[in-house]
Amino acid sequence: MASDLCAIGIDLGGTKIELALVNGSGTILKKIKLATAAQEGPDAVTERISGAVRALGQDAGRPAVGLGVGIAGQIGTSGKTVRFAPNLAWHDVPLQAALQRQLGLPVVLLNDVRAATWAEWLFGAGRGCDDLVCLFVGTGIGGGVVSGGRMLDGSSNTAGELGHVTVDLNGPRCHCGNHGCLEALAGGWAISRRVQEAVADDPLAGEALLAMANGQADGLTAELVARGAHAGDPLAGQIVTETAEALIAGAVGLINAFNPARLILGGGVIEGLPELIQHIDRGIRAKALRAAWENLQVLPAERHNDAGVIGAAALVMRRFGEQRHLP
Amino acid sequence: MASDLCAIGIDLGGTKIELALVNGSGTILKKIKLATAAQEGPDAVTERISGAVRALGQDAGRPAVGLGVGIAGQIGTSGKTVRFAPNLAWHDVPLQAALQRQLGLPVVLLNDVRAATWAEWLFGAGRGCDDLVCLFVGTGIGGGVVSGGRMLDGSSNTAGELGHVTVDLNGPRCHCGNHGCLEALAGGWAISRRVQEAVADDPLAGEALLAMANGQADGLTAELVARGAHAGDPLAGQIVTETAEALIAGAVGLINAFNPARLILGGGVIEGLPELIQHIDRGIRAKALRAAWENLQVLPAERHNDAGVIGAAALVMRRFGEQRHLP
Repeated sequence: MASDLCAIGIDLGGTKIELALVNGSGTILKKIKLATAAQEGPDAVTERISGAVRALGQDAGRPAVGLGVGIAGQIGTSGKTVRFAPNLAWHDVPLQAALQRQLGLPVVLLNDVRAATWAEWLFGAGRGCDDLVCLFVGTGIGGGVVSGGRMLDGSSNTAGELGHVTVDLNGPRCHCGNHGCLEALAGGWAISRRVQEAVADDPLAGEALLAMANGQADGLTAELVARGAHAGDPLAGQIVTETAEALIAGAVGLINAFNPARLILGGGVIEGLPELIQHIDRGIRAKALRAAWENLQVLPAERHNDAGVIGAAALVMRRFGEQRHLP
Repeated sequence: MASDLCAIGIDLGGTKIELALVNGSGTILKKIKLATAAQEGPDAVTERISGAVRALGQDAGRPAVGLGVGIAGQIGTSGKTVRFAPNLAWHDVPLQAALQRQLGLPVVLLNDVRAATWAEWLFGAGRGCDDLVCLFVGTGIGGGVVSGGRMLDGSSNTAGELGHVTVDLNGPRCHCGNHGCLEALAGGWAISRRVQEAVADDPLAGEALLAMANGQADGLTAELVARGAHAGDPLAGQIVTETAEALIAGAVGLINAFNPARLILGGGVIEGLPELIQHIDRGIRAKALRAAWENLQVLPAERHNDAGVIGAAALVMRRFGEQRHLP
């Protein structure tokens, strides 16, 4: 991508909005953060975004080819409407048209996890790779898939819900309503639930972890399990082992189904327990089909907290950057 | 596809070889079947194929644009070499070059399940659809995925091993060595294993099924379970219910991961138990993410036994047909 290109990437969250001017090498030239104040409603949030985009553009002194907005939620097939964003309490908000009208720039909306996958693909651990799967293990689990050099969108723009592959059909209930989803076993919220249940069931085994949480059951989080495991606590270690088994089962299915050349692992749970990457790598090689993993690399994500803004900008440069250079 | 095109499709199995001249509408113009005689080795089999292709071409009186060969096994990334075909006991056989040399025609090798997916996509239940998943539930389980109007190959040409997604991480061992694969719960061989174990464990409950199998434990097959279930046998009904649950769990993961517009179900187990299609359809709508299934159709495969030859020919017409019409 020509490095004199630039675009604006936005990560629109329930509490804060991050905006960044990103160049064609994926470098952030300038960044702004502001409060979402979602309670003021979509129109107010849209105007706040427009104002910040204008400020960012003026400061930068160079024109952006467009604006990409990553949102935790479901985006309409054409990338024009926020169909449902639970953190914003938005239903069917035509954000693209509103921002285009206010800013006179091409605007693309995309799911925030898809945006992070774009960032890893073009400017992170997936650079130069035509076949990759990104799996982001945070509070929830999501992902994105590039196959044959193309990001998979699916028929209604929701491909990549990799946290909701079933890995244990008799397993615990997931937030989505199904049972035994990968997320229900290995997402941050599921790890919290497991450690809280385990400590309640066996207070003696859970004594050390509860002490680490200052005696507060709701302090028994995935992050605390990671700290406990690293400190040698057996119960925390057991929960990490179970989490790894679930992630291996999910990853094996993804490798067999998609046959990627790279599996890129990111998100808070992976960052807190980076040893999971090696466990998953070994597990895949023990359990997936040899032909499916022979050329596989399992790698940590590289773009971390900036992946959302970088990826949203990257998609825009990919889509509109070429046009700018046409006669 | 221009209907004056034609190509030869071959289904190369362990015991028989089927060859068909197929036109650009997916219609079989002529078909030959011969014994594989795999024990004579790859050179003899290759020459037998060449002879049959010549006979087929002469009879047809019109030139084929090329030859597609579907094989139950693993094909090299470039579609030139049979890396491993267990039914033929072939390892690293450069079949493409040999057939091209002998016939002077473009030749493409592909996995037989991928071939069947091509047939469904271009000439079957997937016609006109850009995003589909085919799941073939036979003795084993395999599949193919079209996303964004392209067949997914994966990085080493093994994408679509959908029988080896983990649906029960504590489940029974699969032929692939892993535990709880979809195939290990719902493939024909797994159904046989389950009914044989169930009858051995509880001879009284299994009495009727064993009688249907003429008292022979190895007559307790998936096909017999289907007949038993349709005749109202409770044990057979229970096994069908468990099979449906496993297929639903697998299908839910595929729908959430790929977000196809169509899920096409074929293979002997589905043909023997066509009611599974409706069970799976309902199960997906109860358990997958609404956004992922809103536009989904669940359909039976249409091309059945001819899918292999039609699909292999279809890929060849797709790849080489256009060139013939270039100046």
